[in-house]
Amino acid sequence: MRIFKWSKFFILFFLYVDVQGQSFIGFNSKAIDVQKEMESLIINLPKSEIFKKHLEALTKEPHLAGTPANKRVADYISKTMLDAGLQVERPPYDIYLPLNAGKISLEIVLPYRKPLNIKENIEQEDAFSTNPAISHGWNSFSGNGDVMAEVVYVNYGTKEDFEKLASLGVSVKGKIVLARYGGNFRGYKAKYAEAYGALGCIIFTDPEDSGYMRGLVYPEGTFYSPSTIQRGSLLTLDYTGDPLTPFEPALPLTGNNSVKRLKPEDVKDFHTIPTTPIGYESAQEILKLMKGKPVPEAWQGGLPFTYRLEGGADLKVRLMVEQPKGIVRIEDVIGTIEGTDFPDDWIILGCHYDAWEFGASDPNSGTAMLLTLSEVLGEMAKKGLKPKRTIKIAHWDAEEHGILGSTEWVEQYRSELSKNAVAYFNADGACSGLSFGGSSSPSLKSLMINATKSVPYGDLKETIFEKWMAASGNPATPPVGNLGGGSDHLPFYAHIGIPSLSAGMGGPTLYHSGYDDFHWYMKFGDPGLVSGVTITRLMGVMALRLANSTILPLDPAQYGKDLNTHLDNVQKEIKKFSPTYSVSKLKLITDEITKNGELFLKLRDQVLLKSLNSASLLAINSRIKWLERAFIDEKGMDYGAWYKSLYASSDPYSGYASWMLPGFLYLASNKETEKIAEWEDRYAKSFQQLNEEIKVINELLKKGK
Amino acid sequence: MRIFKWSKFFILFFLYVDVQGQSFIGFNSKAIDVQKEMESLIINLPKSEIFKKHLEALTKEPHLAGTPANKRVADYISKTMLDAGLQVERPPYDIYLPLNAGKISLEIVLPYRKPLNIKENIEQEDAFSTNPAISHGWNSFSGNGDVMAEVVYVNYGTKEDFEKLASLGVSVKGKIVLARYGGNFRGYKAKYAEAYGALGCIIFTDPEDSGYMRGLVYPEGTFYSPSTIQRGSLLTLDYTGDPLTPFEPALPLTGNNSVKRLKPEDVKDFHTIPTTPIGYESAQEILKLMKGKPVPEAWQGGLPFTYRLEGGADLKVRLMVEQPKGIVRIEDVIGTIEGTDFPDDWIILGCHYDAWEFGASDPNSGTAMLLTLSEVLGEMAKKGLKPKRTIKIAHWDAEEHGILGSTEWVEQYRSELSKNAVAYFNADGACSGLSFGGSSSPSLKSLMINATKSVPYGDLKETIFEKWMAASGNPATPPVGNLGGGSDHLPFYAHIGIPSLSAGMGGPTLYHSGYDDFHWYMKFGDPGLVSGVTITRLMGVMALRLANSTILPLDPAQYGKDLNTHLDNVQKEIKKFSPTYSVSKLKLITDEITKNGELFLKLRDQVLLKSLNSASLLAINSRIKWLERAFIDEKGMDYGAWYKSLYASSDPYSGYASWMLPGFLYLASNKETEKIAEWEDRYAKSFQQLNEEIKVINELLKKGK
Repeated sequence: MRIFKWSKFFILFFLYVDVQGQSFIGFNSKAIDVQKEMESLIINLPKSEIFKKHLEALTKEPHLAGTPANKRVADYISKTMLDAGLQVERPPYDIYLPLNAGKISLEIVLPYRKPLNIKENIEQEDAFSTNPAISHGWNSFSGNGDVMAEVVYVNYGTKEDFEKLASLGVSVKGKIVLARYGGNFRGYKAKYAEAYGALGCIIFTDPEDSGYMRGLVYPEGTFYSPSTIQRGSLLTLDYTGDPLTPFEPALPLTGNNSVKRLKPEDVKDFHTIPTTPIGYESAQEILKLMKGKPVPEAWQGGLPFTYRLEGGADLKVRLMVEQPKGIVRIEDVIGTIEGTDFPDDWIILGCHYDAWEFGASDPNSGTAMLLTLSEVLGEMAKKGLKPKRTIKIAHWDAEEHGILGSTEWVEQYRSELSKNAVAYFNADGACSGLSFGGSSSPSLKSLMINATKSVPYGDLKETIFEKWMAASGNPATPPVGNLGGGSDHLPFYAHIGIPSLSAGMGGPTLYHSGYDDFHWYMKFGDPGLVSGVTITRLMGVMALRLANSTILPLDPAQYGKDLNTHLDNVQKEIKKFSPTYSVSKLKLITDEITKNGELFLKLRDQVLLKSLNSASLLAINSRIKWLERAFIDEKGMDYGAWYKSLYASSDPYSGYASWMLPGFLYLASNKETEKIAEWEDRYAKSFQQLNEEIKVINELLKKGK
Repeated sequence: MRIFKWSKFFILFFLYVDVQGQSFIGFNSKAIDVQKEMESLIINLPKSEIFKKHLEALTKEPHLAGTPANKRVADYISKTMLDAGLQVERPPYDIYLPLNAGKISLEIVLPYRKPLNIKENIEQEDAFSTNPAISHGWNSFSGNGDVMAEVVYVNYGTKEDFEKLASLGVSVKGKIVLARYGGNFRGYKAKYAEAYGALGCIIFTDPEDSGYMRGLVYPEGTFYSPSTIQRGSLLTLDYTGDPLTPFEPALPLTGNNSVKRLKPEDVKDFHTIPTTPIGYESAQEILKLMKGKPVPEAWQGGLPFTYRLEGGADLKVRLMVEQPKGIVRIEDVIGTIEGTDFPDDWIILGCHYDAWEFGASDPNSGTAMLLTLSEVLGEMAKKGLKPKRTIKIAHWDAEEHGILGSTEWVEQYRSELSKNAVAYFNADGACSGLSFGGSSSPSLKSLMINATKSVPYGDLKETIFEKWMAASGNPATPPVGNLGGGSDHLPFYAHIGIPSLSAGMGGPTLYHSGYDDFHWYMKFGDPGLVSGVTITRLMGVMALRLANSTILPLDPAQYGKDLNTHLDNVQKEIKKFSPTYSVSKLKLITDEITKNGELFLKLRDQVLLKSLNSASLLAINSRIKWLERAFIDEKGMDYGAWYKSLYASSDPYSGYASWMLPGFLYLASNKETEKIAEWEDRYAKSFQQLNEEIKVINELLKKGK
């Protein structure tokens, strides 16, 4: 019924597309007409009120992975997608997790006894903040213990910070450290503290990093208030996913399956010292009593006194963490719209649904968007406008504890995914503000950029691309980032080599705190409800362009270009200790990749003018789909064999940075001159394989000319 | 008696000089021997206990210009130099000044009545801080008035800050502004506030700029405590010196002289709105009550809340300033050691002696050094080791109110100085820390650098140069700054074209506050008393090298090199609005200056191997002495005719930056395309004159070869 109500937008949109002219890459003329109609619908059907309804429903209550509340969220997701006409599966996994937030107490013991607040204040205007189900701040996978000790301030608790402390003659041995959030993944703060002999670790948000120094604080503004606490996982194993089932899916204990499980005591790298996060009002109570030497200038934060390295003997703090862990049932919720022509080509979109508390921005603004998209795709399907390839919309569980739900699914369907998956789009918290941004594997960059040129931002007056470029200062090249770790694309991208991207709209949020709720979202996050609709359109357009294209619009030439950039960086890093090293041999191959990739683009467009038989197309598309698999190296990285992509990873020191060509960067970080030849060989083979694949595709295309 | 006690240092020193080999530039072999002996004495005679005795005596009590206490300081200076054997003059001037610190009150009136502290707290460990003679914080040349108004925060109160406020739609009209210290000369904060219609101006030190954010605060450390207040003058006329006697000396009213005086009401640019400085504890009381929009991120300071642009109608502040002004008698104290051979060649060293309160670092660490140097030179003179040229040691009065004492003296002796002065060395607060730094006109740069290579730092183990380079990260070129405004070199350098330099040792100080006292100096400033002795040596060595050289060791080639750098900057600035502009014509001349300057250096060294008749030497040295006068342009700058040097000035917008080639920079700042030709012509003439002078000197030298 609704399908003919937007005729005025219809015209607007087509005028628009003609101007751009870059929209239908990989489409032959026959396919373009259907695609135009479908894109028009995908742009005009999403309604902000629908997005809002979903977001509100998803974020009614705190819904940590494994809780009944999170099960209710999964039920809502499942019902919504079923009602929209999607097939829905709910694959369950039994993983090793904290059973709940546990018990934590933190107090100053000397020079006076003072218990410290470890939970957000109630703010009257935000009814959500009164919900008794909100947990105190906590870090999952903390060690358990009850320690009393002097304190040391360790700045951000990075590797460099602990080295600096040692060089200043300050020992954290037997002490409780205070580290501020920022600079690295929180798990490494506690890990380094433990390695240097600390008894406990307190992590606080400094007002310089998010708080009054950055702008007005909640509920007057959108920066951390004094009691706002960043929750988060500490897990830093050398693989991702369930700690007890590396490489294998954590299939239910109750089922009839043979998954080998480690015992928790056999996992070497769990954190052992009690660790907990606090807000800056509680941190201030401790820091202001410290009496030691002042910190190096860069370590000073935004609290109103000079920070000190040590608290001295007159200041003692007690920290108790009791965090029970065990096997917890989680479940992913996956909706499928089967492709009409190529059901075994899968385009997968995903966002986790578990949250630390309400999760309005992180993750459920992404969840609400995916539900809105499911309904639009379902409505189109009912009208007969189905995608040619299969679109899967995945809602992952237990991402917050360490990207667990998606990893287990990838490990379970490793072979199917390796064969079928065309691409993975991640949408974690993708609609939580007004600034567009995206990161992508090379072959998907042009898809993303072109889609932003076709998709109107909010009220249809400007495109996402125009807004994006204006906000970036109109750079020569759109600033698409390199994808690293940090969310559910990781198993797809770094473990099995599926081209991936992450895109969305964001802004300052009350990240991982009790205040990331619907009240915040409607007051600060996106009061005009612009991002939900905009990103629904963008994800839909990108998915449909992959789903309906005649020849998959992946760009192999970009591999060559990006590899060249990353090789320059590798050469710079290795030259620091091996001055004669050169990547020129590898560049000979990557130049070939660029050349053959560009030939592919030309041949593809020529072939699209003809009609190719479907068997040829199938052969060509399969090979395009698999190109990124050339980076998968079964031995994996030296810092963890689970990380199999030679192309991309998160860095193993901070967990934050995107490492491109991580095998090289890791050997460079350790100055392992003796490993250069081995890694150069592994990289050369992978690059050659990629180049050979492109050449084979080009030969197939030439036959079709 | 004392003269033969340092024989062990004697040997050390000569070993040392031989290694360096750059010490005796401009000396013929006969002159070198005497110079060696004199430098050995100037290095070994100064004693830190003597420096300490002088510093303690000079800073017993607050000694603002015009007060009986400052007269007592002048008497001490005078007596010390007389006892050392110097001739002493005390030229008096009657200048227009605040008669005293006046009355100030500052209070919050709404939402509650609260008087604010405007004076430093007493710190028990610092007996000086209990002295009842310490004034409240104040800004001399503030307007008078009693105003009550809402408040606006204006960041640093720069031109750009006020423009930004206007662009944000915030008006300061009818308001009291709060500006933080830093970013420009304080006088401009109040001047811009007045221009935009503000009723009053409060200037505070933000803890981000000097306070707990930078390090431990007084008395635990050397950064501003919450009650520490920066006093200072606001004067921003378009000339320097006594406001009532521009260009003319403010000779005593009592004498028989014909100086024309303006009436105060005829001086157009005095400040009219009440303005006063406060510490951050008082600023915090106001700022924390503000309720308007948050500031742009760069405007946030270090107080523990988000700064706001406006206070809103519920916050009112009352500021009353009653600062009586009138004619005040000041006097400079000038000691002279007449040159044995060339009494009409004057090398002038100076530092002001008036202070806001005790003035331990600023200025009297420089005063104590000059007194130590006077005694050493006096002792040497008694032994028959007198300089060939005249050395004058000047102690200026009323610098703090606007470089008044030195300016009046320069204006009084304009013709003598233009004829006689070889160079001026400024030593304002020159011994207040452990880091060496210096700024210089081009021709004196090599003199300064070479002297630092000959002078031991502190305990004789390292030279100043070695310490300086290590602290600067061992740069390729020693980082000698360009001299601008801000102290007593200004009239010499920018008004009459005497080559000038400023050099000393410093560190963080409690600038212009009540705590800049002898207790602070001995706890934080320089507890080891290293700088007093080190800078006495350096100033002595530099002075004696100028005084005793056969041919004056000024380097004309450096003019060409520095001019080239500054011309590049000028071209960049002018091209912003006049894209085709090029300095290439001017560079033809400056290249000639470099070439002829280098020829001079070569000819000089050749001539020094011969013996030249003294008439020739006199002619050559006079011309070398006058080279810098080529930059003096009688029309002066467009922003003030008193600024006559085409080469250097302070900038007329912030009062802080060193402007090189200021005529050009001012026209560039106003985009006055139509003035480019005129200024290019004035610059070309001046450069040509300089070049011609060098050529004349070279001809004279060639005759001596």
